[in-house]
Amino acid sequence: MDLNAQVKKAGFLQRLKEFPSKLKEGVIKRIKNVQKFGKDDPRRIIHSLKVGLSLTLVSMLYYVRPLYNSFGVSGMWAILTVVVVSEFTVGGTLSKGLNRGFATLIAGALGVGAVHLARFCGDKGEPIVLGIFVFSLGAAATFSRFFPRIKQRYDYGALIFILTFSMVAVSGYRTDEILVMAYQRLSTILIGGTICILVSIFVFPVWAGEDLHKMVANNIIKLANSLEGFEGEYFPSSDKTSKETNSCVQQYKSILTSKSTEDTLANLARWEPGHGRFRLRHPWTKYLKIAGLVRQCAFHLEILNGYVLSDVKIPQDFISKIQEPCSIMSREAGEALKAIAKSIKTMKRDNVSVNKHIEKSQNAIQTLRIALKTSSPETDKDLLEIIPGVTMASILIEIVNYVEKISEAVEEFSGLAHFKETPDPKVSPELGQHQLLHRGSVKPVLEGDNEEENNSSPHVVINVHDEQLPTTNEKKVAGVEKTRVDVV
Amino acid sequence: MDLNAQVKKAGFLQRLKEFPSKLKEGVIKRIKNVQKFGKDDPRRIIHSLKVGLSLTLVSMLYYVRPLYNSFGVSGMWAILTVVVVSEFTVGGTLSKGLNRGFATLIAGALGVGAVHLARFCGDKGEPIVLGIFVFSLGAAATFSRFFPRIKQRYDYGALIFILTFSMVAVSGYRTDEILVMAYQRLSTILIGGTICILVSIFVFPVWAGEDLHKMVANNIIKLANSLEGFEGEYFPSSDKTSKETNSCVQQYKSILTSKSTEDTLANLARWEPGHGRFRLRHPWTKYLKIAGLVRQCAFHLEILNGYVLSDVKIPQDFISKIQEPCSIMSREAGEALKAIAKSIKTMKRDNVSVNKHIEKSQNAIQTLRIALKTSSPETDKDLLEIIPGVTMASILIEIVNYVEKISEAVEEFSGLAHFKETPDPKVSPELGQHQLLHRGSVKPVLEGDNEEENNSSPHVVINVHDEQLPTTNEKKVAGVEKTRVDVV
Repeated sequence: MDLNAQVKKAGFLQRLKEFPSKLKEGVIKRIKNVQKFGKDDPRRIIHSLKVGLSLTLVSMLYYVRPLYNSFGVSGMWAILTVVVVSEFTVGGTLSKGLNRGFATLIAGALGVGAVHLARFCGDKGEPIVLGIFVFSLGAAATFSRFFPRIKQRYDYGALIFILTFSMVAVSGYRTDEILVMAYQRLSTILIGGTICILVSIFVFPVWAGEDLHKMVANNIIKLANSLEGFEGEYFPSSDKTSKETNSCVQQYKSILTSKSTEDTLANLARWEPGHGRFRLRHPWTKYLKIAGLVRQCAFHLEILNGYVLSDVKIPQDFISKIQEPCSIMSREAGEALKAIAKSIKTMKRDNVSVNKHIEKSQNAIQTLRIALKTSSPETDKDLLEIIPGVTMASILIEIVNYVEKISEAVEEFSGLAHFKETPDPKVSPELGQHQLLHRGSVKPVLEGDNEEENNSSPHVVINVHDEQLPTTNEKKVAGVEKTRVDVV
Repeated sequence: MDLNAQVKKAGFLQRLKEFPSKLKEGVIKRIKNVQKFGKDDPRRIIHSLKVGLSLTLVSMLYYVRPLYNSFGVSGMWAILTVVVVSEFTVGGTLSKGLNRGFATLIAGALGVGAVHLARFCGDKGEPIVLGIFVFSLGAAATFSRFFPRIKQRYDYGALIFILTFSMVAVSGYRTDEILVMAYQRLSTILIGGTICILVSIFVFPVWAGEDLHKMVANNIIKLANSLEGFEGEYFPSSDKTSKETNSCVQQYKSILTSKSTEDTLANLARWEPGHGRFRLRHPWTKYLKIAGLVRQCAFHLEILNGYVLSDVKIPQDFISKIQEPCSIMSREAGEALKAIAKSIKTMKRDNVSVNKHIEKSQNAIQTLRIALKTSSPETDKDLLEIIPGVTMASILIEIVNYVEKISEAVEEFSGLAHFKETPDPKVSPELGQHQLLHRGSVKPVLEGDNEEENNSSPHVVINVHDEQLPTTNEKKVAGVEKTRVDVV
């Protein structure tokens, strides 16, 4: 018993001794985690400091005597605005700031009107009339927030409308200085909103549009990596190690559910002014079209991945027959995607190399068809065994076709987004003009929904590529056949 | 010229005459649209009226003299709280209300502390110390909002923390009644929050959990409809018309991108107290697992749909060979999904009918394999032509396998969620017990991550189904083989 107590005591003392070092370890681990999290995207740290800066700036309304004399306690509306409006992206801040500003203006005016109207109804009638106003406008504005169009762009505005109208109308019952109150509220909100927007735009800005642009390009690269990794995974005879490629193959997974992020970014990007390489009316919605095609491709990869993971054994002689064309297909489609992603990232057209890879992958489809023809199964059992292989090849063909669709969508987009033309050294403009006359039907890439931008661009340069046309399989390569004439 | 002017005048008068009727038409059309939108989900109208009600209730702080005397202009914090906290679902309102309440409490206390600390630093030092506090705590709290765990559940709390701390700290510089101010702010926020939460829970509540429950069940039904529609679409020889089924086939589309909605609902559901058929610790996260499998199935349908839409012609004799088993597969898998959805909706187990359909679809896979064996192509050309058909069948097989996985996941879930047992009239408990002794290995369905709930359930009833065991193909039907013993 005594011994037991001694042992317990020793254990307790031991733990007590260890406690500081364990605490230290835990704290250090936490700090390292936070540091790593900040390093992953340093813009997070910068954003946090920006919010601190805005808060400090707006506090001046209290600290500086002359400012405090003119605004008084209304200064807290400015603080509130800064905290609520400070969003990570410029688009988010602008959207919230403008929504808040305009909604306060409209609701404030309506609120003052409602108070004046209610005063006609006598002492007893006033709260009833005000109550009816607040109830009906509050309910109506809440209902409007369900409409998708309003929800998408003016949700915050509707919220602030209800807020401001209720506040002005209700407090109008108790104060006669309603106009002063409304004015102070509006002016402090404008000050807070302006500080936020200025800090957001001029101190290390984070543009939602640029994020969307990079995200779409990166998703295409992920797709390319998955496709290229797939080859090593499905045909493990190649020299890459399996583990290495498996991480590549899984990269497409995040694309499957990235739609909501893309929609949000495109929505915020529309609020942003022109910046860097992006003009004011940059075709943001076109990114969603490209992203949709990329996601379709990812769906196919998800199914394909199921075949990689499945334990079904396919006869080796069949695999060896389709391996060559399948490898080429996935590799070249991957290369084409990488060229497309590079073209988006640099905002320079690069049809030549994109089409070269697409053409190669399309040729591989033909080779695959021939290989399949010659590998007609000899026995009944064979057909059953090659079904997974045939399915895999079939889905791979679909993916190559989708890569071509992506290339076409990016081609269309690059015109709208004013991508730079990579000059083709082989062609002189005169020669191009000459060929043009002989080609017959000429159709500029730009048309339809970008008429304004088309008119506003000062120079229309007609540039004709002199690619080596594919000798075989011409009809398949739609991307090469079309868009021979580009308008910059 | 004169005539021209006359014609113009007449046209103008005509348009002027038509204007009122056109305006009326336009307004009526708009109103009808809004009415239809409200009718689509009447809960939207109810929610709007609930917000109006909460606003009217909270206005009493101003209208009723004794209340106004005790709270004064602080009453506007209550209005602000009501507007901001009123969310569509109970979970949303609770999450925002609790976040707001606790964040205000903590930040208010810290703010009062900061002001007292700053007063030690003299007149000149006070604003500097306060500024440093506001900057650093504001930046730190903003940074914390980037962490996924905090973002998911406490994002709003962090926002309100920054807001309240800044306000208390900054206005503490100008007023000596800081404690009174903090108390008034806290109490009015509590009043506003309480009104919101009470109205949200007791006036036609909308439970996020119930929405999630229905959404998952409805998604399974959509999948079933698409599968059943697919049969009529791909084999148009059946008597259904093509147009009718096409709308069914497309139903799965919304599932492809429903992940973010499901995540949000599951997140909000965790804030909700027990309600109706859902206990407090209902396994909300398990819905996400089922929804993930349903989405996997939808991915496969998306690929399958590509084959329906493609113009590839498959030889009629090959189609006629695989039509029968493929039809049975899609029909029975659809029926199984419908039975699963019904079991979720009613929260009653129905393994018998689910497994019956799964078994039939699995048998059809075997028939299909045999059909494929006997239809080995005669010429080289044939193999190429049947590739799309083979791929279609292969994907259909994958879908059937996923339906089985869904059934297993729902089976596991039904134990955790305390689904009711549908009594099987054929079996008396004694007989079941008897059979049980002869079967050898018995493994309850419930195990692993639901230990707490398992222990807490007072009665453990062992119920043994006496299904007609499949005579052929037993090993394939995993759903039938397992889960013979259910613990309720």
